[in-house]
Amino acid sequence: MPLKNSSTVYLFKQLGAGIAVGMAVAAIARAADHPSSPALMPLPSQLQLGTAQGEIVVQETLSFSLSSKDEPRVEAAVARLGQAWTRHLGRSVRVALTNAMRAQLLITIAHPTDALPALGDNESYQLKVSQGQAVLTAETTVGALRGLATLQQALMLQGDRAVVPAMAIEDSPRFPWRGLMIDVSRHWQPMAVIKRNLDGMALVKLNVLHLHLTDDQGFRVESRTHPELTAKGSDGNYFTQEQLSEIVAYAAERGIRVVPEFDVPGHATSWVVSHPELASQPGPYRIERHWGVFNPVLDPTNEKTYALLSDFFGEMCALFPDAFFHIGGDENNGVQWNANPRIQAFIREHGLKDNAGLHNYFNQRVSEILRRQGKRLLGWDEILNPGLPPESVIDSWRGPDALAEAARRGYAGILANGYYIDLNFPARDHYLSDPLPADSTLNAEQRAHVLGGEAPMWAEWVNPDNIDTRIWPRTAAIAERFWSPAAVRDVADMYARLPAIDRALQDAGLRQGDWPVFPGVAAPMAKALALLANAVEPVKKYQRGGLQPDHVQSTPLNQLADWSRPNSTSARIFNETFQAWLENGSSNHDARLDVMEKQLRVWQEAGSRSADFFSGTDRVSVAQRQTAAALRAISDVGLECVKAIRDRRLVAQETAQPARAILDQAAIPTSTAVEFPFLPSLRGLLSAATARESSAPILPQDH
Amino acid sequence: MPLKNSSTVYLFKQLGAGIAVGMAVAAIARAADHPSSPALMPLPSQLQLGTAQGEIVVQETLSFSLSSKDEPRVEAAVARLGQAWTRHLGRSVRVALTNAMRAQLLITIAHPTDALPALGDNESYQLKVSQGQAVLTAETTVGALRGLATLQQALMLQGDRAVVPAMAIEDSPRFPWRGLMIDVSRHWQPMAVIKRNLDGMALVKLNVLHLHLTDDQGFRVESRTHPELTAKGSDGNYFTQEQLSEIVAYAAERGIRVVPEFDVPGHATSWVVSHPELASQPGPYRIERHWGVFNPVLDPTNEKTYALLSDFFGEMCALFPDAFFHIGGDENNGVQWNANPRIQAFIREHGLKDNAGLHNYFNQRVSEILRRQGKRLLGWDEILNPGLPPESVIDSWRGPDALAEAARRGYAGILANGYYIDLNFPARDHYLSDPLPADSTLNAEQRAHVLGGEAPMWAEWVNPDNIDTRIWPRTAAIAERFWSPAAVRDVADMYARLPAIDRALQDAGLRQGDWPVFPGVAAPMAKALALLANAVEPVKKYQRGGLQPDHVQSTPLNQLADWSRPNSTSARIFNETFQAWLENGSSNHDARLDVMEKQLRVWQEAGSRSADFFSGTDRVSVAQRQTAAALRAISDVGLECVKAIRDRRLVAQETAQPARAILDQAAIPTSTAVEFPFLPSLRGLLSAATARESSAPILPQDH
Repeated sequence: MPLKNSSTVYLFKQLGAGIAVGMAVAAIARAADHPSSPALMPLPSQLQLGTAQGEIVVQETLSFSLSSKDEPRVEAAVARLGQAWTRHLGRSVRVALTNAMRAQLLITIAHPTDALPALGDNESYQLKVSQGQAVLTAETTVGALRGLATLQQALMLQGDRAVVPAMAIEDSPRFPWRGLMIDVSRHWQPMAVIKRNLDGMALVKLNVLHLHLTDDQGFRVESRTHPELTAKGSDGNYFTQEQLSEIVAYAAERGIRVVPEFDVPGHATSWVVSHPELASQPGPYRIERHWGVFNPVLDPTNEKTYALLSDFFGEMCALFPDAFFHIGGDENNGVQWNANPRIQAFIREHGLKDNAGLHNYFNQRVSEILRRQGKRLLGWDEILNPGLPPESVIDSWRGPDALAEAARRGYAGILANGYYIDLNFPARDHYLSDPLPADSTLNAEQRAHVLGGEAPMWAEWVNPDNIDTRIWPRTAAIAERFWSPAAVRDVADMYARLPAIDRALQDAGLRQGDWPVFPGVAAPMAKALALLANAVEPVKKYQRGGLQPDHVQSTPLNQLADWSRPNSTSARIFNETFQAWLENGSSNHDARLDVMEKQLRVWQEAGSRSADFFSGTDRVSVAQRQTAAALRAISDVGLECVKAIRDRRLVAQETAQPARAILDQAAIPTSTAVEFPFLPSLRGLLSAATARESSAPILPQDH
Repeated sequence: MPLKNSSTVYLFKQLGAGIAVGMAVAAIARAADHPSSPALMPLPSQLQLGTAQGEIVVQETLSFSLSSKDEPRVEAAVARLGQAWTRHLGRSVRVALTNAMRAQLLITIAHPTDALPALGDNESYQLKVSQGQAVLTAETTVGALRGLATLQQALMLQGDRAVVPAMAIEDSPRFPWRGLMIDVSRHWQPMAVIKRNLDGMALVKLNVLHLHLTDDQGFRVESRTHPELTAKGSDGNYFTQEQLSEIVAYAAERGIRVVPEFDVPGHATSWVVSHPELASQPGPYRIERHWGVFNPVLDPTNEKTYALLSDFFGEMCALFPDAFFHIGGDENNGVQWNANPRIQAFIREHGLKDNAGLHNYFNQRVSEILRRQGKRLLGWDEILNPGLPPESVIDSWRGPDALAEAARRGYAGILANGYYIDLNFPARDHYLSDPLPADSTLNAEQRAHVLGGEAPMWAEWVNPDNIDTRIWPRTAAIAERFWSPAAVRDVADMYARLPAIDRALQDAGLRQGDWPVFPGVAAPMAKALALLANAVEPVKKYQRGGLQPDHVQSTPLNQLADWSRPNSTSARIFNETFQAWLENGSSNHDARLDVMEKQLRVWQEAGSRSADFFSGTDRVSVAQRQTAAALRAISDVGLECVKAIRDRRLVAQETAQPARAILDQAAIPTSTAVEFPFLPSLRGLLSAATARESSAPILPQDH
């Protein structure tokens, strides 16, 4: 490891509009070769490690100072950093605002502001860590937040010590628009999902949350002018207006814009459930439960369509302060328009040529509504038709070529294609997708139209339990593509850093590392174990202390004895059934024999199957496996007896002897500290089957 | 079922002090014979079913009226009833206060009060349900709460209909003291455990929560005069004073008294951790981590002992308004007193005779402290010594004879013996234990001293996860013993009603029905399934919709495809290792072969073991089992190849052919909708091992 203690420089320069040239990229030390460096993602545009001596040692308190008094967003970000480090280290790291003389972390902001984040914010910052001190300098408040995200990732464990090593960073983003889209329509994603993903976005410097709020499968925002939209179109799962404002504020606190999307005129089933009169074919409609592209589409020839959109978009524009407003516009399959003679007549009468012309007419009407609200329109590729207002932005699912074509026509755009994290491609594939590929033939002015990109999380196959596993950690690699210089594209280096970032994301509150609860998988095991647990009881009186003498206050209560319960219902009923059978003359075709046989078969299988689960070689597992095996063995004995009784034959002495030994053995308490409360009944059955000790001979009187 | 539609009368009369005679008990219809009756527990002292026609049908709203305006406790109890019914029915049951003209439930209280519950409260009530209306009448507010508990249990499902059938009840308790004791010292039990168990107590008409707050293993209440008691004696697990007041208020709202216990002078280790000078032998002491009877005991000859108790009990008496105060007093083994010459000299000098005399001296000093606070002293059997103040109460762990002896000596008492639910005996045993057994020779006056009983939940073997399974449902049977007439003792009938009560308790918030999380049991399975999940990835692009065409919005996302993740790390590293091996000349003793072999062995075992878990016969389980089996099969192929390569032999054609078929088969997507991302590497290994398609022959160049 010759590089380990040497100094390393990750150095990139940005030339022209969006052109990044890596300097000596091939010679750069990769994270894998440099284990004493922190794993940062996105990589800063300039990073020097090891040139200076020193480090910050993180102890109980991280003291920090602020150059200006009232910086609640920065203070809150430092507090979150403290929380994340607390989770990471498993011990408390408090943060304390102090004066610059004593602070470990000095934060200086040239032009602090509490303005909402906006496209084009200056996000640059400098971070210099030397012995005992970190100095973070930024032009703007948002820049300081980006620097704090870097610092949050820079914590390293060296043995027992938690340190931030010396480093010098000058950093600014390659693209100004770095987004994550979350679809909350296909599967509903509640507030907690949105909030923790905003925390994740902040950690990797993403700055736009695009919320896909309506689609065929659900209308997910409250409208006060048209409450019927959610009343009929949401199954009750939608954000209230208070919640939407809460999301906007939560995002703004992290320097993240929120762009809402209301997909029109297609993907509109959930709209027309309550407003069938606005569809292009007669209703009624129901919320769509399947996945795919569907026919329902708003009728652009109906003035009531624009009246509703005007009401509703007016409410939404007030709630979402960002300058951009996404109207979807994708995947109208044309079926309803083609089938509607009135709509086709409208196309002809207005000289619109075809469905694309009609879609364009619709967009112009909608953009007029939004223009009155001071918004710039954003939409998927399909909106790029002649007459699209020049300030509109293309969100390209089609790809870099489509985006470049838009740029040539003067439209700004972002790239979604290549970052579809719902499609389960590896991080590598997304990482190597570039909004401005190296072979791009765009000129400098056209390149400036490429604002960046976004990762769409379509929600057909995700719910709150697993959505984080689909977004993270891969989206951290995408965030690096959007922020870091184009020359940063060493896949192995990215993968070497990814596990640490994955951990940092979980420290920030994301849940991709949680073991999900999947009843479909666990159910068969759970059933066998439940049957085992119900077949036994914890030992009585104070026996357990003797059987488990090592048990102390801190010993987990997680064994079969804890899991089973007093007064087992199945055992009690078995005992009652046996008693009733005995009192009824021990007949060989009493229905109670069937009841006992059925229960014994259940226990036999439960014992057999659950024994497989206790596969550990530790003492507790071995003992529990033996208990499960004993359940199977005594059930075998019981079944043998039932069979003999039913066949009116005596169990032979050479069979009865070992059978009795099995029952005797099972009666001896073991370190499992459970007992089989139906053992006396099995002894009784065995006696009856051998007719030796039984006062009620089983030989036929009833036939 | 001749009784099914006939009228049934459960009728008991109470004669004299505590003597109950069942009228025609033997002839009473048991619940098992009478499935259309609600399962009530405790059984009311008089219950007539089916004599009147009619029922209440419970729809969306239950309307109720109150005879007096301000009855927050009763309103809250009706609201809880609505919540429990909502849980039971799986649909919303709202409650709405209305006027008596329109109410389904009319509640009339003769003497409403907001006084705290106290021993001897009139708890009687009458409940009459006829067509469309229930009339609940009580002398007191607490009586009304008891009647509502009966009504809460009386809901029945008849097909789709939820009804309360016609009935006429006159009810009052046999004993005035009906307790549950919870030990929060041995294992800490937080607020949630206490609150949900208070809800359970209310449902079965228990009226005293006895909190065992200090013991050798933990000091569980905040003292403001002596914060060192918890600082050193609690591991940080204790109730704050605010929480204690919250418990008292929560209980009072349910008509339940709270009696605190501070066990002295024995069971005192957690006291002397912070006050070794008060022990009867020199310290230092540590919190006890084991179970049993231990030596540490307070020094009754030290005036500082009384100074501390006076401070601390003063605080506690202010927090716990009940008239009774439990000082424990049990199981002082005398070891420390015997070994302390100064203490033995004190005994001689004060003419106290022996250790029992010294304990008595201690009790008198303590009772004087409590008398000044207006409290009556309560303690375990050992406190019954000459000179015990006559207003003291014996909590008998020794049994009915000890209790009877105390009664003969004029002391009131309650029976704990027979109700030790920590000992895992069946409900039947507790049910047949009686504070006043049928063969009691006490006279009427002495009988009046027997106030009732309590079920002690000692906490050596319970934590918040399983404590409810130890308390419930057995304590419902104990509650019936304390409330219902003595003649109610049909075990089969009790067991027939118990499942419905168990369910009602869970509807009220108890958790004995929850599947507990026991990592010790689930860990081996979880590990195998995690390895399986990490070996596969969900299929790419939009394939899944085609493979699982029946999937709709409401289909649970709980299959292997949901559980696995994109970009499997173990698969990626395997592929990278294979590539590096190939590029390095496919050497037969490259360490990368070891890495691949090790991973393949892990997958082989994970496939093999996890296949056992998918044992269902449904389509999803079958498919997942096949996927697990495929993982095992392809791992076998890989291992075969590694072995051949290492042995420098070619895999024979007759082996290679089926091996290739196995890999081909595994590459075909199934309805599991996952894929094996390392399959290409296995194909490469097979090619290398057969040297057929490989450009890098494996035959030795390196040796």
